[in-house]
Amino acid sequence: MAFESKIRTIQWIDNVSRMVDQTKVPYEYVTVDIKTGQEMFDAIQTMIVRGAPAIGIAGAHGVVLYAQELKKEGLSRDEFVKELIKKSEYLKTSRPTAVNLMWAVQKQIDVITSSDSDIDGIISELTQNAIRMEEEDISINKRIGDNGAEVVPKGATILTHCNAGALATVGYGTALGVVRSAFAKDNTVQVFSDETRPRQQGSRITTFELKMDGIPVTMITDGMCSYFMKKGMIDMVVVGADRIAANGDTANKIGTYTVAIAAKYHNIPFYIAAPLSTIDTSIKTGDEIPIEERSHEEVTHINGKRVCAEGINVINPGFDVTPHELITGIITEVGILKPDYNKSIAEAFNRK
Amino acid sequence: MAFESKIRTIQWIDNVSRMVDQTKVPYEYVTVDIKTGQEMFDAIQTMIVRGAPAIGIAGAHGVVLYAQELKKEGLSRDEFVKELIKKSEYLKTSRPTAVNLMWAVQKQIDVITSSDSDIDGIISELTQNAIRMEEEDISINKRIGDNGAEVVPKGATILTHCNAGALATVGYGTALGVVRSAFAKDNTVQVFSDETRPRQQGSRITTFELKMDGIPVTMITDGMCSYFMKKGMIDMVVVGADRIAANGDTANKIGTYTVAIAAKYHNIPFYIAAPLSTIDTSIKTGDEIPIEERSHEEVTHINGKRVCAEGINVINPGFDVTPHELITGIITEVGILKPDYNKSIAEAFNRK
Repeated sequence: MAFESKIRTIQWIDNVSRMVDQTKVPYEYVTVDIKTGQEMFDAIQTMIVRGAPAIGIAGAHGVVLYAQELKKEGLSRDEFVKELIKKSEYLKTSRPTAVNLMWAVQKQIDVITSSDSDIDGIISELTQNAIRMEEEDISINKRIGDNGAEVVPKGATILTHCNAGALATVGYGTALGVVRSAFAKDNTVQVFSDETRPRQQGSRITTFELKMDGIPVTMITDGMCSYFMKKGMIDMVVVGADRIAANGDTANKIGTYTVAIAAKYHNIPFYIAAPLSTIDTSIKTGDEIPIEERSHEEVTHINGKRVCAEGINVINPGFDVTPHELITGIITEVGILKPDYNKSIAEAFNRK
Repeated sequence: MAFESKIRTIQWIDNVSRMVDQTKVPYEYVTVDIKTGQEMFDAIQTMIVRGAPAIGIAGAHGVVLYAQELKKEGLSRDEFVKELIKKSEYLKTSRPTAVNLMWAVQKQIDVITSSDSDIDGIISELTQNAIRMEEEDISINKRIGDNGAEVVPKGATILTHCNAGALATVGYGTALGVVRSAFAKDNTVQVFSDETRPRQQGSRITTFELKMDGIPVTMITDGMCSYFMKKGMIDMVVVGADRIAANGDTANKIGTYTVAIAAKYHNIPFYIAAPLSTIDTSIKTGDEIPIEERSHEEVTHINGKRVCAEGINVINPGFDVTPHELITGIITEVGILKPDYNKSIAEAFNRK
């Protein structure tokens, strides 16, 4: 049973891309209309839009915006196609590490290169494709949510880390999609949200979007999870994923692995919620997943102010890898995959 | 081998109490001279001085300051004693949950009530007692440090949580006393400091005092500890304690328990460093230790700015309890206590 969320992170509407300005969260919920390709480039770069799936859709919209602009230049069809592909490739560079951005823009480039239509036809096909991608994202999220809801106990308190929510996707969320679907069935379900230092996606974004949707949420700092687990106040953990290896090892926001170890120690189920597209079967184990080292200022400064001594060492890995043996199940759009993951993941791709 | 620290958190000197103004850390290292009893009351309340042992000494100094003031009022000896005890009891209320404050002020009250001297004699005895307490704190810390240094491997990286350092004590530290003594023997030893949300004692204070003493320190966020443990970058964990039960269960700053679980999962030694005075043998297990619930603003606001959605739930336990089975040893001034703690703690008190 799907929950009706008030949040729509990004949507193609009236020939513009309307998106929630996430630089304003948690202080305001306002949308901005992105009207040109360059505006989209900037919106991605300045993180007005964030979250891998949402960035992907933003990229798809960006290609349509460039197409609308190029049409006005009175180019020949060949020139139009050539220029549009050039602009699309440029758009990919707005956030070079965002795999979903590359993937979604490439899907649009494929539409351009395989089209037999005239310029208006190409624009129409690109628009249709972008809208289809939006709908597919929501539809997959809802299936993940509904599948996950089946393992949420009555009245459960669900701990989550970071933000795998509506504001990271088009509008429903993966880990928070499970929360939404569970809450739709049983409104005594509630959430504990880790703050998720250093970037505080838990405190800034997860608390905000759950509050907006009327789902009870309690914010805790990252070190507190074990305290509440021991007290019996956490029934399960559900988090998202950035990349999953063929054996189930899962890269997600830094701090996830610590939560998984604590859950194991307290015999609390620990689930990953992610679409099959997050699983990279070309990667055998988590050891092969590269971990991005991010800016030290994320650790040393909060809201622009230094919070530690000057001149100390800092290491800031953006992600960690939770080994498959700590994962109770991987909640996907085709069902919940269980260990042995090598087997269940391979089967899921066959079913797909 | 004791390390010569540049830090002296609090010291009785020239008839005043000179203390590091900890509200300025990590931005400045400045001392203030506290000259009256009321100034001391305010310094304790506004956390110019913090850390249980340091607050205790501040209380002892405060009684001397009140005595110096009362002397000027030309009271009879009886009136002087009566007024001084009244002021001392008032001083205890500056931070009602600080056990060390009660303990240290009570020690001074005992000096007053058991003295046969005149007013000048009482003041002299109170001063001597305060200085003795200072020296004893440093001496105990150095013995803790030296005992702990014996189990620090060559070139070790020591993870610590919160601040059990020079700035929490008179000038050497318990957990960081172990670090200082180890560094004095082997200057390839280094520290990883957890940020320690919500109050950030790790980032604000631990990084500052280690930097000042030239001991290499790397700051990480609380969720990162497991990541570095898995990479083999942490050799041992040493933390302080707020209260230790007869069976070894240890209450310490919130987040300690999570680090202990992670250390166990990675087979990394996890030590408590604390004076015997922290052990409360009247408490059988950690279940009996009350956990203070602190202001929600510590979680929701950083440097005065809200970091999450408005109107959400918050729980802010100040401490957690690490069960004895996760503790490799308790480093005290009389040696390192090992499991079975019921036995080793009882023996330590007999030896004392």
